[in-house]
Amino acid sequence: MAGPVGVAIHGGCGALRREDLTGAEWAAAREALRRSLRAAWDIVGRGGSSLDAVEAAVTVMEDSPAFNAGHGAALNADGFHELDASIMDGATLRAGGVSCVRRIRNPVRAARAILDEGEWVNFAGEGADAWAERAGLAMVPNAYFTTQRRVDALRTLKELEAQHASHRASEGEKHGTVGAVALDRAGHLAAATSTGGFNNKPAARVSDSSVIGAGTYARDGVCAVSCTGRGEFFIRLVAGHEIASRMDYRGQSLKEATDGVIFGDMKRWDVGAGLCAIDANGNAVVPYNTIGMYRGFVTPQGGLHVGVHDDLALVETLVV
Amino acid sequence: MAGPVGVAIHGGCGALRREDLTGAEWAAAREALRRSLRAAWDIVGRGGSSLDAVEAAVTVMEDSPAFNAGHGAALNADGFHELDASIMDGATLRAGGVSCVRRIRNPVRAARAILDEGEWVNFAGEGADAWAERAGLAMVPNAYFTTQRRVDALRTLKELEAQHASHRASEGEKHGTVGAVALDRAGHLAAATSTGGFNNKPAARVSDSSVIGAGTYARDGVCAVSCTGRGEFFIRLVAGHEIASRMDYRGQSLKEATDGVIFGDMKRWDVGAGLCAIDANGNAVVPYNTIGMYRGFVTPQGGLHVGVHDDLALVETLVV
Repeated sequence: MAGPVGVAIHGGCGALRREDLTGAEWAAAREALRRSLRAAWDIVGRGGSSLDAVEAAVTVMEDSPAFNAGHGAALNADGFHELDASIMDGATLRAGGVSCVRRIRNPVRAARAILDEGEWVNFAGEGADAWAERAGLAMVPNAYFTTQRRVDALRTLKELEAQHASHRASEGEKHGTVGAVALDRAGHLAAATSTGGFNNKPAARVSDSSVIGAGTYARDGVCAVSCTGRGEFFIRLVAGHEIASRMDYRGQSLKEATDGVIFGDMKRWDVGAGLCAIDANGNAVVPYNTIGMYRGFVTPQGGLHVGVHDDLALVETLVV
Repeated sequence: MAGPVGVAIHGGCGALRREDLTGAEWAAAREALRRSLRAAWDIVGRGGSSLDAVEAAVTVMEDSPAFNAGHGAALNADGFHELDASIMDGATLRAGGVSCVRRIRNPVRAARAILDEGEWVNFAGEGADAWAERAGLAMVPNAYFTTQRRVDALRTLKELEAQHASHRASEGEKHGTVGAVALDRAGHLAAATSTGGFNNKPAARVSDSSVIGAGTYARDGVCAVSCTGRGEFFIRLVAGHEIASRMDYRGQSLKEATDGVIFGDMKRWDVGAGLCAIDANGNAVVPYNTIGMYRGFVTPQGGLHVGVHDDLALVETLVV
């Protein structure tokens, strides 16, 4: 009774213009996406759980400086990092999340530890860091998350702000998030999301990435979703759960429901947005309405696809 | 084209057993519920907005020591107060919330200020207190929130914990929350919620009361909902938005959708839970599955009802 498996990821819809990074930098980002997908596939492809798979995929992206999560995260207006993450198990509806943490090396692992502990769902701020430290998670100084790219981006944004021209900042300077969804052989769906928020955000701002139902949602038999973009609108729309509701209660397909949110609701609000999502049959979608989104998926047949702009392509076929 | 108006509130489903409070204490709690409803009715009854009404209703309950929110809030395991609150405007889907704040006199007012500012939805921790202070909200020392009743409750819980008998704690010692929903003459729905969490909760724990879609949700044409009970399950169920989805997409009535959550999903999980909700016609419901819930509503005809256990009764008829 082993069913199909599938994995999809995003590395943020705040992808830069092609000309803003070197060929080597783009290649490194694509390679990180490939490794993230492989990490998840190595688990679900061998009969492991979708929950382990999404945690593994997000951990790879948190560790890569190419994405705005973990090492490589955005800097807030006060010049330090506050990270949000969450994870949800579609089989049990158990979930975990952390908001505005500063010292947890891999916030998604803290979210997973909270889910496993089972009594709570979300911790915020310094107390969340303290909880993770007591739980034995790897802790780092805040500066571990800093990369030159984000230091430069914050300086650029502060300059634009001083000129009252923040609107000229690119999507890439403004936000970014990483996320993963997966279906395992037992038919269980899971989703996970992690972010540094966006450059120059106010201290203490909570994004959708730690909000169950908004940036992260999974329910067996329906779908798993991880969102990226201007988080406030995903919270107001309760986007993840809205997609599940349109599928479960209105009979929409995964593509209809996700396109409705990304190209309907979000586009109407002029909000840059994207997501990765997967349904109970392993069909994956990675829609976005910006100039690009770091993204990839593995089909139930093992086709590993990666892309950033209009370059989405099959790059490898994995053993099913 | 003035439509019907309506208001409903709850003061937490962790109501105590009748014998645990004196007659005077029960009378004081009921009077606070009445004042909360009057504060909201004075606004919507005169053509004001549902958003102003729910903020006013919740503010009255935050200021009353009878409820677990604002002055009278629960104490966490470390012996201090961390408060959560949120508010949502069903007309625009704008929302605001604060998590784990310690110095804002009325957390619901901070949530409203965030909604009005419009750019963000949620702030957490000390940075949220700092944001509210800069926004000009009334700030208080943490001890302002402390009442003898919560000091006693925390001591009792610590003693039970030492005896490994925490399960013997009553619902009233474990949790509590206040909330309000309203419909105004223009047909706009709004919801607001505020809580001290529960006695002996771990520091930094975020409840559903600051999570849009979970403890607080409003959408014009459908419903407004504010929840109370063991918050983690409201988050996992995305309860507020789930109720709206069952109404909007499955055609359920407000009563069917809310009963399904409180007596179906929550009861199945053995979770103490309740809520107040109102639909686009001003029909209000206040279901709960515990021994009691502080609650009340004003019908579109002006009937002001208040109750805690099975004593729900019309206590006053207001001018429509």
